[in-house]
Amino acid sequence: MNTFGKIFRVSVFGESHGKAIGVVIDGCPAGIPVVAEDFMKDLERRRSGKPGTTSRKEEDLPEIVSGIYNGFTAGSPIVIISQNKDTDSGSYEKFTAVPRPGHADYTSKIKYSGYSDPRGGGHFSGRITWGLVVAGVLAKKILKDSIISARLIEAGGSSNIDKAIEEAIRASDSIGGLVECRVENPPAAIGEPFFYSVESAISQIVFSIPAVKGIEFGAGFKAASMKGSEHNDPFINGKGTTLTNNAGGINGGITSGNEIVFRVAVKPTSSIGLEQTTFDFTAGKLVKLTVEGRHDTCIALRVPVIVEAATAIALTDLLLIDRGIAGVRKFKT
Amino acid sequence: MNTFGKIFRVSVFGESHGKAIGVVIDGCPAGIPVVAEDFMKDLERRRSGKPGTTSRKEEDLPEIVSGIYNGFTAGSPIVIISQNKDTDSGSYEKFTAVPRPGHADYTSKIKYSGYSDPRGGGHFSGRITWGLVVAGVLAKKILKDSIISARLIEAGGSSNIDKAIEEAIRASDSIGGLVECRVENPPAAIGEPFFYSVESAISQIVFSIPAVKGIEFGAGFKAASMKGSEHNDPFINGKGTTLTNNAGGINGGITSGNEIVFRVAVKPTSSIGLEQTTFDFTAGKLVKLTVEGRHDTCIALRVPVIVEAATAIALTDLLLIDRGIAGVRKFKT
Amino acid sequence: MNTFGKIFRVSVFGESHGKAIGVVIDGCPAGIPVVAEDFMKDLERRRSGKPGTTSRKEEDLPEIVSGIYNGFTAGSPIVIISQNKDTDSGSYEKFTAVPRPGHADYTSKIKYSGYSDPRGGGHFSGRITWGLVVAGVLAKKILKDSIISARLIEAGGSSNIDKAIEEAIRASDSIGGLVECRVENPPAAIGEPFFYSVESAISQIVFSIPAVKGIEFGAGFKAASMKGSEHNDPFINGKGTTLTNNAGGINGGITSGNEIVFRVAVKPTSSIGLEQTTFDFTAGKLVKLTVEGRHDTCIALRVPVIVEAATAIALTDLLLIDRGIAGVRKFKT
Amino acid sequence: MNTFGKIFRVSVFGESHGKAIGVVIDGCPAGIPVVAEDFMKDLERRRSGKPGTTSRKEEDLPEIVSGIYNGFTAGSPIVIISQNKDTDSGSYEKFTAVPRPGHADYTSKIKYSGYSDPRGGGHFSGRITWGLVVAGVLAKKILKDSIISARLIEAGGSSNIDKAIEEAIRASDSIGGLVECRVENPPAAIGEPFFYSVESAISQIVFSIPAVKGIEFGAGFKAASMKGSEHNDPFINGKGTTLTNNAGGINGGITSGNEIVFRVAVKPTSSIGLEQTTFDFTAGKLVKLTVEGRHDTCIALRVPVIVEAATAIALTDLLLIDRGIAGVRKFKT
Repeated sequence: MNTFGKIFRVSVFGESHGKAIGVVIDGCPAGIPVVAEDFMKDLERRRSGKPGTTSRKEEDLPEIVSGIYNGFTAGSPIVIISQNKDTDSGSYEKFTAVPRPGHADYTSKIKYSGYSDPRGGGHFSGRITWGLVVAGVLAKKILKDSIISARLIEAGGSSNIDKAIEEAIRASDSIGGLVECRVENPPAAIGEPFFYSVESAISQIVFSIPAVKGIEFGAGFKAASMKGSEHNDPFINGKGTTLTNNAGGINGGITSGNEIVFRVAVKPTSSIGLEQTTFDFTAGKLVKLTVEGRHDTCIALRVPVIVEAATAIALTDLLLIDRGIAGVRKFKT
Repeated sequence: MNTFGKIFRVSVFGESHGKAIGVVIDGCPAGIPVVAEDFMKDLERRRSGKPGTTSRKEEDLPEIVSGIYNGFTAGSPIVIISQNKDTDSGSYEKFTAVPRPGHADYTSKIKYSGYSDPRGGGHFSGRITWGLVVAGVLAKKILKDSIISARLIEAGGSSNIDKAIEEAIRASDSIGGLVECRVENPPAAIGEPFFYSVESAISQIVFSIPAVKGIEFGAGFKAASMKGSEHNDPFINGKGTTLTNNAGGINGGITSGNEIVFRVAVKPTSSIGLEQTTFDFTAGKLVKLTVEGRHDTCIALRVPVIVEAATAIALTDLLLIDRGIAGVRKFKT
Repeated sequence: MNTFGKIFRVSVFGESHGKAIGVVIDGCPAGIPVVAEDFMKDLERRRSGKPGTTSRKEEDLPEIVSGIYNGFTAGSPIVIISQNKDTDSGSYEKFTAVPRPGHADYTSKIKYSGYSDPRGGGHFSGRITWGLVVAGVLAKKILKDSIISARLIEAGGSSNIDKAIEEAIRASDSIGGLVECRVENPPAAIGEPFFYSVESAISQIVFSIPAVKGIEFGAGFKAASMKGSEHNDPFINGKGTTLTNNAGGINGGITSGNEIVFRVAVKPTSSIGLEQTTFDFTAGKLVKLTVEGRHDTCIALRVPVIVEAATAIALTDLLLIDRGIAGVRKFKT
Repeated sequence: MNTFGKIFRVSVFGESHGKAIGVVIDGCPAGIPVVAEDFMKDLERRRSGKPGTTSRKEEDLPEIVSGIYNGFTAGSPIVIISQNKDTDSGSYEKFTAVPRPGHADYTSKIKYSGYSDPRGGGHFSGRITWGLVVAGVLAKKILKDSIISARLIEAGGSSNIDKAIEEAIRASDSIGGLVECRVENPPAAIGEPFFYSVESAISQIVFSIPAVKGIEFGAGFKAASMKGSEHNDPFINGKGTTLTNNAGGINGGITSGNEIVFRVAVKPTSSIGLEQTTFDFTAGKLVKLTVEGRHDTCIALRVPVIVEAATAIALTDLLLIDRGIAGVRKFKT
């Protein structure tokens, strides 16, 4: 189930402290120009080391294993990996007995009967999103007429983001954030009824990003308290442009060609320096837990470029599905 | 793409004013007792005719076509349909030239080059959710130890729901609503990394429901303004019970066994009696549009039972996938 | 798993003596002209009542439930059914205790713990292929530049087919047959590596047809005893035409544009009038079994049109997948 | 489309002369003991260097990238690769202008508009089957109660295999072969109607193996000339054992528990030392072609272990799907 998409199919693999992490991209059209450097800009945006993110030095250099030949996609499955180098596994072992509150430690243990790799969150690590960003770079090339941009618009409930992060660092705590994503000039008429609407596709992939706990399109949750006469977006011309955009560019699950707009709620990082009282499953009693090591104070800082990638992947898949249908028109009687 | 699920696979078909609508359920285990009457309670909840919903009289009687034999599921694909009887197609034709603001009229026309059935919204009608409710009844039987309940907690921004609807009816307008869904005693340890997390699966199917524009799990959008020390749910015993439930019962995309909680934002019905100014694509100019006929003032009233069904379907699929893995343990060396 | 295809997706449902059987076709392009009469020619070829096939009178009239509007495919899922009318279920009950040798009676019982519908073979009946033929008619419309034709080239090991059938009827026995299928002017360059090669796709769907036990492409099993210098097909012009066609039009799993050729082995009908010695699972001892009722002496007679349909469905799916990729070329930098 | 399976999902990637080739195995149950050495026996059987196979020295050492932790499968996607080292790409370039008869040179070029990697057959190389064998080793562990064994029973039409190969080497030609596969003590009651029967699943994956051109189950093509009274396999006891096994252990697409038997036709290697007359697509005229370099005289020699792996993968997927259904029985009312 580690695959997203029907035609443009993206799979991620790897564990945080394993040998390497990576991504498989199958169904990518042949002939798209791409070199390793093309991935660096978005990977840099995702990279650790900025204020509010961990100090772990990932090299993040993408290693192309297959599917790219002479500077172009070849039509065969593309595999790109990143070796894991800077890992410090020692501090994670105690979380088997005392799973961190808010973390996947507990659920991954019960799901896999204790066989999952607990080091650094294993396959549940945020590090796995590296592959999403890599696949997103290719997807953006396919969607080249569209401009996808996401940004953090709030952290810890405040639009004064740097200040909120500084305060959280001082308090050895973490904070959540709100990310907004916009797609200018999206392909029109993509999205499939019933179960693969644009919202279905985007939300499925966006909720794969660790720490995401909510998504809303257009007016979103505000729509629940609006009237139809306020919410409806009237058309103003023959291109389908609407006066307002409460629908966020999507009606009936299909893009109208108006800007796609959605927002994503990111919870605070669960690993915090503050002492927490929780349960020791081995000792069978409540204990005090302090999570040492390097943490992201505000993981939401890294999320925008991942949301962009997820969006690009979902839209590319929908586009290629639709071209499948549109492309056959010449075969009709 | 009209199929949801990997093992418990649900497909819906039909057009609002076509011959019939229905559902295909493939991969349902054999031996589950079921008769046509079992579907009536949930179909009644979804049914039209209550205050705030349309006066259209659907019989809603499920007709079992295949897959059920002698009162039990047989293992083969289950098809259940509902004949369309009470249809009034006349009033819909003008929407080809003047697509209703906020509706799928425009996007379905451009997507299918004008070949889609426009009558009553065709395949984009809310009527298609009938099949979801039918499949949900079967899914609930499989999940019988869990109690799934959704309810409308706000309409038009107010918790005084009946009053808000009365006002909207008086104004010939429509209103949105907020639906909350809870799953008590959910199966623990279900949900797949990376792209088929519990949130991914539930959001994919919930966004298939027409008019849904947002979803949030646990603390949801509030989490974006919380601190880690507030948001983390500490464990209090060896069963994995947590003191708080900001995660909504899901960590790392996997159920912890704590109650699953999420909320869904439903936009106001796009068809309203009030006059709207919009574009006539045939005449090439702005026109006044009044949508006559029967409309739901608050479509959100009908949504809870559909959200329950969607949730049951998603969880059943995740459960059957996981049993696939758990079930094979005895084969291991 | 009752679905074939990635884009052009075909699902079949129903039991032989249930209410109705049918087919769901999802992902069919919109705008293909189709009326109920278009299906009759191929359904007539599949129909019972000819020498060597059963005397059961199926009306075989396709009832269009959804997805076709005003004489064209609408883009939404197409459902077409056939009511079951002329059923005689009485004679099948004893096969629960004494499963017929060579039939699915035994395996369907153990798979579904006795819950499957045993009447007329239930979901394992050859009647279910009705839906394949219906879907094949649509697929042939999409592939209109290709001519797909299958025919029975041998029955009971002899090319004197009528005589072989007469003899078998006289002996109250049944006989197998060999079907050859050719696709003139097939789309070139379709077929996906690695697991969805043209041979993989065609064989997957052809082995769904009850009674098929073998398939070979081009020189097929003869290739196992050939030399490379004999088997290789040299190119003779710039269109990729080859001098010989031992590959059956497929290299590396991809069509070359040369004629596709393959053969299918059909076993003899398992239900025969001759007395057989087999096991009574209830009584726990060997018994004599005589299968009364109407049987096909040579089920292979009906298979050619079903093989054509299966081939058309597989090629259409591969074509629409490939158009997905080819269609996006204009998006490349 | 480079993925096989619904639950136990296998994807292969890489090009013959690229950086590495490999396999992704998703959906493998956690807790299966496995170390790198476990793969060596089957990889050795597949390895080059034996009489009749090429002299290329692949190290074939599997490098575990992810999904295996502390000697057990971890539940997350398993990626295993093999670095490409001993490659000689120089001799392949001319095949772009003069595609080798019987090879994928031509079809891969037209499919991918010239962007595919032509070196060593690229993604169409037999080398890609390395990943199948690796996945097969894991699948065999899951199916541990079954014994899967395939062997070459004929080469060049003769059962005197070594002699046939020696003659072909002397003639600078190649020869095809016939492989028989048997599964003793297979899981009973697996296989899904309609499109994922045991024969459908096995044939889909077996036809992915380069050079396979035919498959037949049980009596296979002989069944086409048999009578029902000869072909039917009578039951002899309450375990479902049959007196004969013309069905090859499969009825109605479902395993009966009797031995699974099938045969696979492998064509002769297309690369031969003998001079061939074929077309030069650049020069636009017929030319003489001699394929230099190292070739397998009888590629069928390597195929048995690959067929075993393919069979194990298909049966494991069917088993895990079925356990999904069987495993949920306790949830029934």
